[in-house]
Amino acid sequence: MRFEVHILGCGAALPLPGRNPTAQVVNVHEKQFLFDCGEGTQIALRKERIRMMRIDHICISHLHGDHYLGLPGLVSTFNLLGRTRPLHIYGPDRLKEVLDLHQEVGEGRLDFPLHFHPTSPEEPQVLFEDGSVQLESFPVKHRIPTTGFLLREKEREPGVKRDWVRRHDLVPSEILALKRKEDVVRADGTRIPFAEACHPVPAARSYAFAADTRYWEVLTEFIRGVDLLYHEATFGEEMKARAEKTFHSTARQAARIADRAGVGRLVLGHVSARYDRFDSLLEEARAVFPETMMAEDGMMLEVVSCEEIGERGA
Amino acid sequence: MRFEVHILGCGAALPLPGRNPTAQVVNVHEKQFLFDCGEGTQIALRKERIRMMRIDHICISHLHGDHYLGLPGLVSTFNLLGRTRPLHIYGPDRLKEVLDLHQEVGEGRLDFPLHFHPTSPEEPQVLFEDGSVQLESFPVKHRIPTTGFLLREKEREPGVKRDWVRRHDLVPSEILALKRKEDVVRADGTRIPFAEACHPVPAARSYAFAADTRYWEVLTEFIRGVDLLYHEATFGEEMKARAEKTFHSTARQAARIADRAGVGRLVLGHVSARYDRFDSLLEEARAVFPETMMAEDGMMLEVVSCEEIGERGA
Repeated sequence: MRFEVHILGCGAALPLPGRNPTAQVVNVHEKQFLFDCGEGTQIALRKERIRMMRIDHICISHLHGDHYLGLPGLVSTFNLLGRTRPLHIYGPDRLKEVLDLHQEVGEGRLDFPLHFHPTSPEEPQVLFEDGSVQLESFPVKHRIPTTGFLLREKEREPGVKRDWVRRHDLVPSEILALKRKEDVVRADGTRIPFAEACHPVPAARSYAFAADTRYWEVLTEFIRGVDLLYHEATFGEEMKARAEKTFHSTARQAARIADRAGVGRLVLGHVSARYDRFDSLLEEARAVFPETMMAEDGMMLEVVSCEEIGERGA
Repeated sequence: MRFEVHILGCGAALPLPGRNPTAQVVNVHEKQFLFDCGEGTQIALRKERIRMMRIDHICISHLHGDHYLGLPGLVSTFNLLGRTRPLHIYGPDRLKEVLDLHQEVGEGRLDFPLHFHPTSPEEPQVLFEDGSVQLESFPVKHRIPTTGFLLREKEREPGVKRDWVRRHDLVPSEILALKRKEDVVRADGTRIPFAEACHPVPAARSYAFAADTRYWEVLTEFIRGVDLLYHEATFGEEMKARAEKTFHSTARQAARIADRAGVGRLVLGHVSARYDRFDSLLEEARAVFPETMMAEDGMMLEVVSCEEIGERGA
């Protein structure tokens, strides 16, 4: 099943050609979630040939312009393109006010239902779930109320192998027990171990997005063990004082969070426009957490389970 | 003296790659005016290598997203880049509310003075003038309150030729009269004609911007005789009913306005995303008004006086 992060923009506050402000589409099992929506996101969606009308959930981390200024335009474009399916927007409560005002001054009317769900900057929340995925928000520490977002696959039930059903004449209650990962022990003492009777189930994967935030260890509790973490790294360690002052992180701090949270892989983004090249940031992060990558506009990242990373590494 | 229009975007409501929403920079005598500011304008300014901090006047025609959604981001970028010089914004009164709300939710503070000047959708206004140029707004007819904008060079005083001063021993009062374009007649009957004594002065040029508007003949009074007119042409004549319904114009209607207003040249923009090619629009406009061009993103147009167009054509 697909679980991919498509980076549309990973620049910081100053957009530059080729360095869009923050936006990324996460495709989990063909459900598309947009995380942040900086100015120009609708153009980036077209450039990357993403079927934008299939985005039903938009999550906004906070109300600094580089994370949400593309949203009013995207909503308006959805409307112009004749959208009828509902759109869910999750973000700080005042985002609703902003969207309403834009709608009001343009004297427009939306022809599709827009459901707004305020996020809490105080505690983790489950924002949405269905049979296969769960969307959560969690607090981070920035200058204004900000959250990160987390997408988890739900653990799948294993399927029982057909030849085992036949060979042992399994009855429905036994099959259900195996699917619950319980061994079946019959009255005559026969043991049917689920681990052998069932197809192996791929591990449930998870992805966390944390931009913008200063170094904050509490964060590790919310994202513990995720397979992929996107964490901001606005500065290098040489600008640590500035990072602190502006409630941003250094690359090394991001790596330390990844390390302490025991995540699978780390991808760094939201690098300040002052950096032309990212070598030094990557180097300082890898010294702490080797499984680190730099984000780039247009990059596609597959979310791979930690187990699989381990196997690949072995 | 420079008088140029640099098109940053001339697309319609649906932005596409390579077809930015409306924005253009008019450079008159090295003063830069931004007319409209659709989403992505700050990126377009960088791509076109325009010194954006030199823009002191921003004019917003109306509050449909494709004409102003780039403004909050541009204002924020000015601030991040350390702007201190004042910025003047002209537009519908509720634009102030929008800018204030964005500022407020981001808990930001501007380090430069921002002066907001509401425009009137009811009557023409002079918004700004200095020794050499004048900026005006004028009503157009769209679904919501909308204005166009007009930039005029002021007529320059002619300079008196040095050899005439010497040959006739011109006294200051005589020189001033000649500069006022009056012939000097002395007590002895000698006539000194200003047309010969003075250097010829290039005609004062003017540029009008009208997007978005339906066909509205009253408009011709406000833009009479301008040297260059940018007029929207969202549709071709085959979509006339739709143009009427949506308060937009067809290419032929735009040409008719240009013709009836006696302008020098016409440039068409704001073409609907449904048109891939513009040949038919251009053809139908030129049948009514031959001096018609199509706008394109990145295009630079020199504002040339009607007189000069006449000479070139001769």
